[in-house]
Amino acid sequence: MPLITLLTDFGTADAYVGEVKGVLLSRAPSATLVDLSHAVPPGDIRAGAYLFSRTWHRYPTGTVHLAVVDPGVGTARGALAFAARGHFFVGPDNGLFTSVFHDTTVEVVTLPTPSDAAPTFHGRDLFAPAAAALATGASLGALGMPFQGMPERLAYTEPHYEGKSVVGEVVYVDRFGTLITNLTPELVPSYAVLEVEDLDAGPLRRTFGDVPTGGLVAYVGSAGTIEIAVRDGSAARRLGLGVGGQVRARLG
Amino acid sequence: MPLITLLTDFGTADAYVGEVKGVLLSRAPSATLVDLSHAVPPGDIRAGAYLFSRTWHRYPTGTVHLAVVDPGVGTARGALAFAARGHFFVGPDNGLFTSVFHDTTVEVVTLPTPSDAAPTFHGRDLFAPAAAALATGASLGALGMPFQGMPERLAYTEPHYEGKSVVGEVVYVDRFGTLITNLTPELVPSYAVLEVEDLDAGPLRRTFGDVPTGGLVAYVGSAGTIEIAVRDGSAARRLGLGVGGQVRARLG
Amino acid sequence: MPLITLLTDFGTADAYVGEVKGVLLSRAPSATLVDLSHAVPPGDIRAGAYLFSRTWHRYPTGTVHLAVVDPGVGTARGALAFAARGHFFVGPDNGLFTSVFHDTTVEVVTLPTPSDAAPTFHGRDLFAPAAAALATGASLGALGMPFQGMPERLAYTEPHYEGKSVVGEVVYVDRFGTLITNLTPELVPSYAVLEVEDLDAGPLRRTFGDVPTGGLVAYVGSAGTIEIAVRDGSAARRLGLGVGGQVRARLG
Repeated sequence: MPLITLLTDFGTADAYVGEVKGVLLSRAPSATLVDLSHAVPPGDIRAGAYLFSRTWHRYPTGTVHLAVVDPGVGTARGALAFAARGHFFVGPDNGLFTSVFHDTTVEVVTLPTPSDAAPTFHGRDLFAPAAAALATGASLGALGMPFQGMPERLAYTEPHYEGKSVVGEVVYVDRFGTLITNLTPELVPSYAVLEVEDLDAGPLRRTFGDVPTGGLVAYVGSAGTIEIAVRDGSAARRLGLGVGGQVRARLG
Repeated sequence: MPLITLLTDFGTADAYVGEVKGVLLSRAPSATLVDLSHAVPPGDIRAGAYLFSRTWHRYPTGTVHLAVVDPGVGTARGALAFAARGHFFVGPDNGLFTSVFHDTTVEVVTLPTPSDAAPTFHGRDLFAPAAAALATGASLGALGMPFQGMPERLAYTEPHYEGKSVVGEVVYVDRFGTLITNLTPELVPSYAVLEVEDLDAGPLRRTFGDVPTGGLVAYVGSAGTIEIAVRDGSAARRLGLGVGGQVRARLG
Repeated sequence: MPLITLLTDFGTADAYVGEVKGVLLSRAPSATLVDLSHAVPPGDIRAGAYLFSRTWHRYPTGTVHLAVVDPGVGTARGALAFAARGHFFVGPDNGLFTSVFHDTTVEVVTLPTPSDAAPTFHGRDLFAPAAAALATGASLGALGMPFQGMPERLAYTEPHYEGKSVVGEVVYVDRFGTLITNLTPELVPSYAVLEVEDLDAGPLRRTFGDVPTGGLVAYVGSAGTIEIAVRDGSAARRLGLGVGGQVRARLG
């Protein structure tokens, strides 16, 4: 049973996801479809790329990942299908797959636009047919010509040193209002103290259960980077902070 | 593997969809369930009918479509199961299936109400058992008596001419704030200029990528009718327009 | 095909549900996954327990139910897997499964925490592997040691008499704004009159279709307890009432 995951910014209120799934199941009737998320903020490639980076590698090899956050749909931006680490990927060439291109060899093809594709809905008319073809055993070579050059990658801000501090930033805010940062445990020794908006979040704890209800807490999150949370509350609301907000680890 | 699609106004926060799926999978264990949408605004048959019209025909023949937007549940409104174009349909007789009854021959039966059905939850107690029965091979005739008369259909406003203009209306607003209208390309020649709320949306373009960020743009949408969008923004918010709002194509 | 249901407070916007499903499908590739709800308010064990109580028994025996509303993740709270009435259950020991422990014999084991589990994401690293193991035929005994003592149960307020009235409370408010109470039909004879916030909701009706649009109405809901609704409207908004709000049945 081939597995196809879906990550989009289509939302789940409209018919778009249902139309895409109809195309997939008409062409790959035995496929199992799994939603990663359809609530990527409209056109937010960076948020989509973050969510995608956390999830795809949790799936078994052979899985086809269809990811469509595509503000440039219908323009000259490329359409890709590729294979990496035993998985298949289908979507626009706009940086959404940055985490996959990182440190791995990939085989990439350019997908042609079907003549009857709606210029505003390549998810349904271009990408879904390609994903269904891969799920039913088609080779990449049968889907398009080898891609020339380098697929798009997002540029990320790296943590940097400022005097006796390491300064990172918030890369994602989740449903619980937890601030997920780009600071890694290697950069934050056990004697360091975390600071956000001049508030002291203390040294790294194991989990938010290690502080009292309402307390600000820093810990290594489930994606492997430092997170700032409020126990049984929202750090984003408490601190008024969002993506791009600064987080500092004082080292002395 | 039989396929059952679900379209409701139950939302996904409560237990209702989970209860319906439990009934379906208890009675049709090998069925594959696909959500079209559960976010139809509560009781909004018109929005449900629009979403349903876009999706059902994307699925393979043999699919059973369970659609429940049912403000009249428990009253005298009819309960139907029917077949059309090789698909099966189950739901209330209130216009939700208008797009299917249009221009096609159908075989319709009336579903009896089980004596132990909750009067407020026919989705679980009446419609889901019927959908599961069809998915496991039951005939329509085994589910109920032939339906007498004509199922309900929604009345739609058609575009009309006013002097040198064609006037249509918004039939749906999607997650991106795109205004989907009832104007078809046949009514809007290439020299026509689209107007919404006294703002000029220009002639038909191919896609929203054809105008600069923030620009108002009109194009033939993925459902085949004219749409008005703001590139990387929301036309609904910009124009303060919703369902029923007027859109005009000036022909001279 | 083993069936695994999921109930969480993870939301569907972030990657968390997608990560959990990746773990499940990597370890139990032939499992069918069904979402009960992921929109339990963050950390609201009571709401999660209510939704879970309505749904799990609708599924066929053999189903594995993975339920994670877990504000105490990473602390000393227990982690359980157990069997009851032919179903399997996996999740934290915090009262989420109160409806299952009620009036039935269960076999319970304590799940050990894998050494590499993220302390903030036992859903992915502890509970999902256990659910996948049960779905692929592992015995409870293979997953952990027999649980000592009594699993947590939520304490519920019972309806009580005040003079010539029975007084209950709202236990859940659904998407439609319907107030679901803990009053059972046995407590409310046909001559009783329902009262909420000094407003008269009349005697028990069959369904909301029995009053005019906008009318306040009381009936036996689809979970078997009394509900208060506004036809084609929201009782919660009209009455400004939520969970814990008082509902009174006047008996004379």
